[in-house]
Amino acid sequence: MGTGIGNNTARPSKKSSHPEYSIKRTGRPFSSEYRIYFERTSPFCSLEYWDDILDKKPRFVKNCFPYKGYLWNYGALPQTWEDPHSHHPDTHAPGDNDPLDVIEIGRAVARPGDVLRVRPLGILGLLDEGKTDWKLLVINVDDPLARGHDALRDIGDVEDRLPGLLDAARDWFRIYKVPDGKKPNDFAFHGAWRDRKYAERIIDECEDAWKKLVHGQVKAKDVSVENTTLDGTPGKLDPDSVSLPKDEDRSPAPVEQDLDEWFYLDRDNLEGDVRSEGGMNIMLELG
Amino acid sequence: MGTGIGNNTARPSKKSSHPEYSIKRTGRPFSSEYRIYFERTSPFCSLEYWDDILDKKPRFVKNCFPYKGYLWNYGALPQTWEDPHSHHPDTHAPGDNDPLDVIEIGRAVARPGDVLRVRPLGILGLLDEGKTDWKLLVINVDDPLARGHDALRDIGDVEDRLPGLLDAARDWFRIYKVPDGKKPNDFAFHGAWRDRKYAERIIDECEDAWKKLVHGQVKAKDVSVENTTLDGTPGKLDPDSVSLPKDEDRSPAPVEQDLDEWFYLDRDNLEGDVRSEGGMNIMLELG
Repeated sequence: MGTGIGNNTARPSKKSSHPEYSIKRTGRPFSSEYRIYFERTSPFCSLEYWDDILDKKPRFVKNCFPYKGYLWNYGALPQTWEDPHSHHPDTHAPGDNDPLDVIEIGRAVARPGDVLRVRPLGILGLLDEGKTDWKLLVINVDDPLARGHDALRDIGDVEDRLPGLLDAARDWFRIYKVPDGKKPNDFAFHGAWRDRKYAERIIDECEDAWKKLVHGQVKAKDVSVENTTLDGTPGKLDPDSVSLPKDEDRSPAPVEQDLDEWFYLDRDNLEGDVRSEGGMNIMLELG
Repeated sequence: MGTGIGNNTARPSKKSSHPEYSIKRTGRPFSSEYRIYFERTSPFCSLEYWDDILDKKPRFVKNCFPYKGYLWNYGALPQTWEDPHSHHPDTHAPGDNDPLDVIEIGRAVARPGDVLRVRPLGILGLLDEGKTDWKLLVINVDDPLARGHDALRDIGDVEDRLPGLLDAARDWFRIYKVPDGKKPNDFAFHGAWRDRKYAERIIDECEDAWKKLVHGQVKAKDVSVENTTLDGTPGKLDPDSVSLPKDEDRSPAPVEQDLDEWFYLDRDNLEGDVRSEGGMNIMLELG
């Protein structure tokens, strides 16, 4: 299973040594023009090229004390979709119109554009601003923690060998938008992490939704279904009509946001206002 | 009050714009040869030049999940000393033979060699490997949090406005050496933060100890008392006999340690062994 990975890091993307695809980058990292295209070099590779659609501004997560940026590699599973038209029976909320998000907990810090082969371990039913936004927890199969007789194979192994990670991950997703003035997020299953078996069921569901999407059985706003590999789909383009840009590998753009800023949130009083004072944002308790 | 600040950051030191001193840097940052000298340019400045004695290897703190490096600026108060010959009546442990350590919690990330004017807010009685090693908590007087009608003025203000910081700081100092195979640290006062008034008493005590040291009333191993400004002290040198090197401002040396590595510690079972497996270090529960 592959997962496209991006994160807040300022590290440059490396040329991939993966034999099955190459990447083409245009625009400056940390700018709204930045795009990463994947180009298949092997007919057996399941990746399509796609461009990395960002918001109007590149998004850097706020540092919610004591978490500095992301605590893991963050990416998405290709060929998956969380269907916004259907309420999930377990979360009672519609999908968020995105691919299935992934947090990868291995020791190597990935670069934007990296593609990793991973093992699913469990899943968290985040309800992000009222939308179903599953967070699939995985380990890079090349990580030391994924190997040996005590390899990570299911969600219980994560708590045993990386104590505190699961609680911190839930806390992180609960509060990460509070500095932007939003309410803390909720969870399905009262925030319980589900196991690998359940996670694989969600992966299958999201793959099925993606298939319906690219075959035109479901329509979606703001999602391109153009592709060069899926015969018989409405978005199929003639590969010869598509030309990818040259790989540019430019230096990062200046970042407006202060990436060192801490936000302190009182976990017991998270409904409070966000106050900005001289550029320092503080969460207030309700009296 | 001034505090000399250094931390794990790879940011380059900036030329100081402080009118009362200049800094001279030799060797490469992150190498054992790196030294920062402070040179007085005003007779009213209380700083002496000194060199930044490091261990044989530069020390980078381990990332104990969920803390990435230091959570604050870390430095020391000049003209203070924690006397290793005397057991402190409140901690029942001898001093650690270092200046009084400082954590500064303002939003600006300081560079090695910066000197900040700070306000003391409280103090933690760390017992680091059995030695008294006070951690003075301060705020840069130029920080937005130090100004206005709700400025930070005492330890209670810190918990009110930066919820979680005091608990995280205590947790951080308790566990930070565990990845190196050491036991978790203890604290005086069962880990309670003491207020500003008590902190100022400890500052005075450490200043008195420093005075005895530089006046030769107490001897100390591994501490140089050489100086160019303290008339009548045994270490007084003729300023004309001392020549400082030129400021070099070199690029950082390569770092051997993997600065991205996470260490996961089970807070309820911290006496366990440290296991290293394929370069990934994991804390084990005792069975």
